[in-house]
Amino acid sequence: MEGKEEDVRLGANKYRETQPIGTSAQSQDDKDYTEPPAAPLFEPTELTSWSFYRAGIAEFIATFLFLYISVLTVMGVVKAPTKCSTVGIQGIAWSFGGMIFALVYCTAGISGGHINPAVTFGLFLARKLSLTRALYYMVMQCLGAICGAGVVKGFEGRHQYTLLGGGANSVNPGYTKVMGLVLKLLAPLFLSTLSSLLLMPNILAPLPIGFAVFLVHLATIPITGTGINPARSLGAAIIFNKDKGWDDHWIFWVGPFIGAALAALYHQVVIRAIPFKK
Amino acid sequence: MEGKEEDVRLGANKYRETQPIGTSAQSQDDKDYTEPPAAPLFEPTELTSWSFYRAGIAEFIATFLFLYISVLTVMGVVKAPTKCSTVGIQGIAWSFGGMIFALVYCTAGISGGHINPAVTFGLFLARKLSLTRALYYMVMQCLGAICGAGVVKGFEGRHQYTLLGGGANSVNPGYTKVMGLVLKLLAPLFLSTLSSLLLMPNILAPLPIGFAVFLVHLATIPITGTGINPARSLGAAIIFNKDKGWDDHWIFWVGPFIGAALAALYHQVVIRAIPFKK
Amino acid sequence: MEGKEEDVRLGANKYRETQPIGTSAQSQDDKDYTEPPAAPLFEPTELTSWSFYRAGIAEFIATFLFLYISVLTVMGVVKAPTKCSTVGIQGIAWSFGGMIFALVYCTAGISGGHINPAVTFGLFLARKLSLTRALYYMVMQCLGAICGAGVVKGFEGRHQYTLLGGGANSVNPGYTKVMGLVLKLLAPLFLSTLSSLLLMPNILAPLPIGFAVFLVHLATIPITGTGINPARSLGAAIIFNKDKGWDDHWIFWVGPFIGAALAALYHQVVIRAIPFKK
Amino acid sequence: MEGKEEDVRLGANKYRETQPIGTSAQSQDDKDYTEPPAAPLFEPTELTSWSFYRAGIAEFIATFLFLYISVLTVMGVVKAPTKCSTVGIQGIAWSFGGMIFALVYCTAGISGGHINPAVTFGLFLARKLSLTRALYYMVMQCLGAICGAGVVKGFEGRHQYTLLGGGANSVNPGYTKVMGLVLKLLAPLFLSTLSSLLLMPNILAPLPIGFAVFLVHLATIPITGTGINPARSLGAAIIFNKDKGWDDHWIFWVGPFIGAALAALYHQVVIRAIPFKK
Repeated sequence: MEGKEEDVRLGANKYRETQPIGTSAQSQDDKDYTEPPAAPLFEPTELTSWSFYRAGIAEFIATFLFLYISVLTVMGVVKAPTKCSTVGIQGIAWSFGGMIFALVYCTAGISGGHINPAVTFGLFLARKLSLTRALYYMVMQCLGAICGAGVVKGFEGRHQYTLLGGGANSVNPGYTKVMGLVLKLLAPLFLSTLSSLLLMPNILAPLPIGFAVFLVHLATIPITGTGINPARSLGAAIIFNKDKGWDDHWIFWVGPFIGAALAALYHQVVIRAIPFKK
Repeated sequence: MEGKEEDVRLGANKYRETQPIGTSAQSQDDKDYTEPPAAPLFEPTELTSWSFYRAGIAEFIATFLFLYISVLTVMGVVKAPTKCSTVGIQGIAWSFGGMIFALVYCTAGISGGHINPAVTFGLFLARKLSLTRALYYMVMQCLGAICGAGVVKGFEGRHQYTLLGGGANSVNPGYTKVMGLVLKLLAPLFLSTLSSLLLMPNILAPLPIGFAVFLVHLATIPITGTGINPARSLGAAIIFNKDKGWDDHWIFWVGPFIGAALAALYHQVVIRAIPFKK
Repeated sequence: MEGKEEDVRLGANKYRETQPIGTSAQSQDDKDYTEPPAAPLFEPTELTSWSFYRAGIAEFIATFLFLYISVLTVMGVVKAPTKCSTVGIQGIAWSFGGMIFALVYCTAGISGGHINPAVTFGLFLARKLSLTRALYYMVMQCLGAICGAGVVKGFEGRHQYTLLGGGANSVNPGYTKVMGLVLKLLAPLFLSTLSSLLLMPNILAPLPIGFAVFLVHLATIPITGTGINPARSLGAAIIFNKDKGWDDHWIFWVGPFIGAALAALYHQVVIRAIPFKK
Repeated sequence: MEGKEEDVRLGANKYRETQPIGTSAQSQDDKDYTEPPAAPLFEPTELTSWSFYRAGIAEFIATFLFLYISVLTVMGVVKAPTKCSTVGIQGIAWSFGGMIFALVYCTAGISGGHINPAVTFGLFLARKLSLTRALYYMVMQCLGAICGAGVVKGFEGRHQYTLLGGGANSVNPGYTKVMGLVLKLLAPLFLSTLSSLLLMPNILAPLPIGFAVFLVHLATIPITGTGINPARSLGAAIIFNKDKGWDDHWIFWVGPFIGAALAALYHQVVIRAIPFKK
């Protein structure tokens, strides 16, 4: 199996030199990608650095802005008597996808631009960040989401907010919970496949990531309101705080986390072929 | 004809130095593009490399996700009683175009990012990949498309899926089959013209390719449901499996393949001027 | 606090080398970002340079085109009896966001691409430009906005322009002025967070900036018509010149300016950690 | 005036080093932009080179595809009984803008990516290409436009094509011809301002150019159907060949050409400050 190992070692993101087939977007970086060492579970030194705390603040602010803008957009559409006079379902999808594009772009250099506990979980499984940092990020993301949804509730008023559904996720009638779960699982699988491919530094990555979020929303808003971000679902559920918001809530955590785990597995086994290396 | 050959040899994608006219997007790469040698019909060594199999897996997953997201979007629009409360025809066009953008971006470095048997066929005619690899890609693309459409059918339920048309392509009443065929031929000609120009490595290429797919859908959804991807048409037809899905099916293979062949010809003769070189 | 200072000095926009987490969009620029010296309040030499005056002309033309295209789009939507036959609210949001993208792209190399007095104010607080230049830019932006709105009024005719509301901003009924003010404050905070992060030279920056403007409009058009640009609000109010246009006008100046100040503070303290440095 | 000349010589697209204000998108290219020599009126040698003829073929195919896709989209919207079930006016605007983005991207390296006689005229005035080449491009653009509109007529059938208006431009009732002319003049002024700024090689330029076309269409479709491209107007008028198509036709040539001339003037005087140099 000498040839196979050679091939794998030659670089996971480049087909072999003898077959320059099709459009090769990443071919600018000529040198082979070298696997960085796995992040330790606990890294005491990072707790003493300002950049660690700044990263958490950035994740908090990003998730806050994400919820604030997207829930406000959802409620503007729900409130109107006719969808034609609003930005429509397509506008909601743009709101989610576009926010992820802009926020990942802004926070990529500061925190890595996760803005989603499932993304943090997947990257932790791939050993790209320490357990300390992963938990810290998830807490900051959830806090940001709660605050973002809270500010919208303050704007719209308690009564109207409750009336309009609060932007909370639930599995729509006509679809079973298992189907909702599988759907949740497939959507982040798609997203994570994308983002795992995009782990390498690349200034263009936020654009396809944001587009993927947009497309998943285009397809699945009619089915579950598209909960691919557990922090977003938690924030909306806590602020809404009605049975309708909590009943299916576990789906919006279990689904994305299984999806992220599968994506990490796909990345390590198929793309990086790590198990086949010595 | 000394001057002409010199000019052609000077580089197919650069107008001559003395006439720096207009916006020249590719002018960053200063060195001339050198024609790579034609790929052999059969290359036994690639069958022993992991990157060959990984490329097929990537094509499978990409076509799977392409069908899954786009057919789900189509059915969400068809299902609704009024288009205003959906993402609309424009949303469907975004779904197809956006998926191609994100997926080409992700798979470009792994398989070349074809996701369409017609693209594979055109690149094979231009001798950019071996016959083995071309057939392998096409099989994986069709399998991925069938699975993607199958998962949507599983979600929606057999009855509703059939009722909603299954996202299958057909030539709409009011247009003859010949017109449908010519339309098929022109659309991939446009796409392939694009993609043949984009054969050179360029990190931005997936964006105009995705946009082109979006635009072709904007224009031709009202006429044939825009079948420019034979794998997508096959997957939807097999899972739908009604006469309506099969009757015009040959058009969705013959059209794109002739278009791809013309595009390869255009690229070799006009752009590269290969016949005029020694 | 030796470690902390070291970490901060290591570069504000790069997490530490030992933690390469997630997508890092800016990682191409390997060398650390060095804080440029603060701009002086008055810089007499710049008054004698052609590039100073050219920058003002560019700001004037950009704000002129911004108002001209966006107000024309707004009035085309307002005029129509049914929103379905227009570009819709989403189209208006695209118009504002897309114009900012294209205009920032064009003027970035000439004036820095502000096109908004609040952006100029925030950058002045961060000491990125002199007081002279800041005031000069703001005057040119307001003049450009007035001319842009005036040309639209000329096209549509005085009567119809007044009837259609003149694209002027006001706080919609159902929201108090305090809420409108807070909203104004949050929107540019978001924008300025973005743009302060984007202070470093980056050829892609105009795209997320434009997208952020698009998204803020998607979310807040139903509430206040989204006045995040004081020059745009002033231009429309002067040309419209009705009580409805002037009543809430202070909100459209105070809100964005407080937001810009908070953003500058956030940038200097959290991102650059300047107070913690010697 | 020593300082002024120095400043101008220092580079037209860079504000002075001492004032690093705001986002500076083009600051990557550190070396100063040097004015290329003006193109001669007639350059006999280019007539013997294949790249000259290839450039014309590329302009022909680009204009052909531009008309084919955009007119097909227009007719799909016009044909439908209700706009809600179509891609809508916004979809038409995307079609025009998106096509220009994709086609400029593809042809930039081959012909300079004009696809519009007014752009060719403006670049000729700025002495960026010879008279021979300018006339050759314009003829090819018009021929391509006629063929593109002709193919759509072939698809839709003579009767239906005439009934639907053939995608031809005209000044809508309620606006005088002078207003239509001024509008035509402003739109390409905007576009040409953009494109003149973008004359320097820049791989990202096609995106803002395409966006600008999209935005102009969003704003002015309700007024004149947005004729900023004389070749597109001519092609639709020749194939439609009804009085309605020809009456205002001169506006769609005079307007864009005056706009392009003003843009060339603005570029040479304000941006490049050429008259002030020795």
